[in-house]
Amino acid sequence: MAKTRKIVLREDEMPRQWYNLAADLPNDPFMSPDGPVPAEAWAPVFPMNLVEQEYSTQRWIDIPEGVLELLTRWRPSPLHRAYNLEAAIGTPARIYYKNESLSPAGSHKPNTAVAQAWYNKEFGIKRLTTETGAGQWGSALSFACSLVGLECKVFMVRVSFDQKPYRKLMMQAWGGNCVASPSNETQAGRAILEKDPDTPGSLGIAISEAIEAAVTDPTGQTRYSLGSVLNHVMMHQTIIGLEAKKQLKIAGEKKVDVVIGCAGGGSNFAGLAFPFLYDKIHGADIDIIPVEPASCPTLTKAPYLYDHGDTAKMTPLVAMYTLGHSFIPPPIHAGGLRYHGMAPLVSKAVSKGLMSPQALHQLECYEAGILFAKTEGIIPAPETTHAIATTINEAKKAKEEGKEKVIIFNFSGHGLMDLTGYDKYLAGELTNYDLPDDVIKENLKELEGYPKP
Amino acid sequence: MAKTRKIVLREDEMPRQWYNLAADLPNDPFMSPDGPVPAEAWAPVFPMNLVEQEYSTQRWIDIPEGVLELLTRWRPSPLHRAYNLEAAIGTPARIYYKNESLSPAGSHKPNTAVAQAWYNKEFGIKRLTTETGAGQWGSALSFACSLVGLECKVFMVRVSFDQKPYRKLMMQAWGGNCVASPSNETQAGRAILEKDPDTPGSLGIAISEAIEAAVTDPTGQTRYSLGSVLNHVMMHQTIIGLEAKKQLKIAGEKKVDVVIGCAGGGSNFAGLAFPFLYDKIHGADIDIIPVEPASCPTLTKAPYLYDHGDTAKMTPLVAMYTLGHSFIPPPIHAGGLRYHGMAPLVSKAVSKGLMSPQALHQLECYEAGILFAKTEGIIPAPETTHAIATTINEAKKAKEEGKEKVIIFNFSGHGLMDLTGYDKYLAGELTNYDLPDDVIKENLKELEGYPKP
Repeated sequence: MAKTRKIVLREDEMPRQWYNLAADLPNDPFMSPDGPVPAEAWAPVFPMNLVEQEYSTQRWIDIPEGVLELLTRWRPSPLHRAYNLEAAIGTPARIYYKNESLSPAGSHKPNTAVAQAWYNKEFGIKRLTTETGAGQWGSALSFACSLVGLECKVFMVRVSFDQKPYRKLMMQAWGGNCVASPSNETQAGRAILEKDPDTPGSLGIAISEAIEAAVTDPTGQTRYSLGSVLNHVMMHQTIIGLEAKKQLKIAGEKKVDVVIGCAGGGSNFAGLAFPFLYDKIHGADIDIIPVEPASCPTLTKAPYLYDHGDTAKMTPLVAMYTLGHSFIPPPIHAGGLRYHGMAPLVSKAVSKGLMSPQALHQLECYEAGILFAKTEGIIPAPETTHAIATTINEAKKAKEEGKEKVIIFNFSGHGLMDLTGYDKYLAGELTNYDLPDDVIKENLKELEGYPKP
Repeated sequence: MAKTRKIVLREDEMPRQWYNLAADLPNDPFMSPDGPVPAEAWAPVFPMNLVEQEYSTQRWIDIPEGVLELLTRWRPSPLHRAYNLEAAIGTPARIYYKNESLSPAGSHKPNTAVAQAWYNKEFGIKRLTTETGAGQWGSALSFACSLVGLECKVFMVRVSFDQKPYRKLMMQAWGGNCVASPSNETQAGRAILEKDPDTPGSLGIAISEAIEAAVTDPTGQTRYSLGSVLNHVMMHQTIIGLEAKKQLKIAGEKKVDVVIGCAGGGSNFAGLAFPFLYDKIHGADIDIIPVEPASCPTLTKAPYLYDHGDTAKMTPLVAMYTLGHSFIPPPIHAGGLRYHGMAPLVSKAVSKGLMSPQALHQLECYEAGILFAKTEGIIPAPETTHAIATTINEAKKAKEEGKEKVIIFNFSGHGLMDLTGYDKYLAGELTNYDLPDDVIKENLKELEGYPKP
């Protein structure tokens, strides 16, 4: 075998530190009506060891031995060379992908789930609460809690709870307690059920319930956990890019030209991209592309503003690209990309012109997903197909330009739990959707009077 | 990190030859009314390059470069040390498992699927037909056909087709064409539907349909593919055990005491076990345990006889442990273990006293599966839980005996597509089932007058 298809690392070759982009690119502070939110204010919501990470501007942060041990359940992840996809496109580009689909939950989400569970356990917490939309994050956190010995309570948006029973069953197999949101277990939930007993629920409502369930626990031993957006979550994911850089070196690549990831809240994208962004900030010439759906075009069509992270305005104000906290994206199948905002650190980098965001339609993405499944053999998650479609476009561009570019993208998760989306695509039942500019404008009116970053 | 959790091999450390047990333990010939079946008789069913392998008694057979390249899509697979399962049991035994769940189809099945697809393509075949029980094999062959460029037609046992729609969607994503069996597309299928329109189907029936669809193709460019039972299939799977032996050596283990795999047709079990059986035949003291469900107790309750591999008696007679070709096992959730017979090479080894088969009930297996998910983090396929339950029993035995045994089992596949079984288990809706002796006796009457091995 002349060609090496995958570059694998041994456990002892795993990175020992996370990269914290906030050291090189501090983002704007969280804001409340009283001004910047101090770290202590988060104490009822997150354990202070994670709050410390959230506010840290230290560049490299040691990964505790206990977290490393948890990560070795499935890490390091392989870096694949996509020979067959390259051949199908006929491109001179060399395409690599970091395979994050091999975790027991099937995506990159466990990278931060095990870290958060470990830090909470260290801090003496007994129970975590969280929300989940399609269920990727809820299953990742259930997995992590089961490994470290924490209880896990997941509020799952009712419409997904009813339509996607497999994700709920995954959580149950790991001992997670998953309920449909709105539920009768919180004041927020009860209030909404009283008004509208048949509500399909929303991520905003589920966040409100999860936070309430954490902060109102009279024992004080419950905290809340978030699977994306925040600085410490981005940082936990940087192990993806740090491993990838080691692997590209082993593959003999001296330079990377294009780095690609799909972006909803931003965590899988940041995980691959931030270690390369470090190089770019320090002089390297790299094109870094977050890809979002045209139906939820946060980075490509929305402004950089202060806004709440949730619909019910329970979070402080966050400086980010936002479509407005009341925006409810159309129900495209890439549920993980349906978020009105974007991670502050990703937003900051885009606002500084360090990244080149793109938006794609879902039909092009599913087509790319099928090509990938038939050439490289792995069925991608609908979210991941956005990164693949952009990779294909970049590889075609390299072909037109006759350039031997090196392209890397994050294969953030497999699509085995999302096959109904492919079924509908293959049956011709899906359509594209562009969010009209006037809808965005109308929606952003709710941010009038908010501070500006 | 003092403890290494996974031993990984690089692609260039992958075995370059398969081990053929038939060199050390020839099985009884296929029989027809005219006596032993010559290799040439298989020409309409399989390509002759695979028939040659089926009849070969050469001990080591080179893996073609083209097959190696296909295997590197996901191989070598890691060998995990189950530290947390050991701790939960409190055993002095060291437990290892070979993780075959990381293939794009989620099980060990692609090991032979890509080999068979490659040999068929080499032989000029355009289209493969096959049967599938739970859907593991059908999706593996669809995956393989998509990679090498063959059409793929899958007859899926109806009870699984109805219970497991996701598997069918996986096949479609890879371009496979999947129908419920019995179907109206074959004479065999129509005959059974006429007698019993509500039949849940069986592997035996689906095999009949797939063979008929292959041999009746007037273009002569269709062949049949089988995912278990046959010698060449067992041989393709031996890469599992050959890798595992290298990895155990790296882990510092000088001796293996117990080798465990679940056994339906026998292929994942044989894949791990045969390379260790080679050592046993040559003097090593190893306990080798195939585990089957108590509801389909081929090795533990049935006799070693000549029988057909399929219900419609399209195959020649095969010497094996069998419950009779008309036997339709009760619809337990481990669909991959519902086969009336057993691979001839596994059967031969058991008949020679070289293995110690066990049968388990499904409740004990699901309980083991949940313990594994909560300790080791991966949700096992229902089939795989049989191997886990036996591993736990053996580890407890080692604890009672105070012995530092080395136990290895095959983690044949993940359970992400089989979560409804876990749901029913957790809801207390599953029961155990023992196949009564008189039912077996009654069923075997159909074999009266058949030759004896």
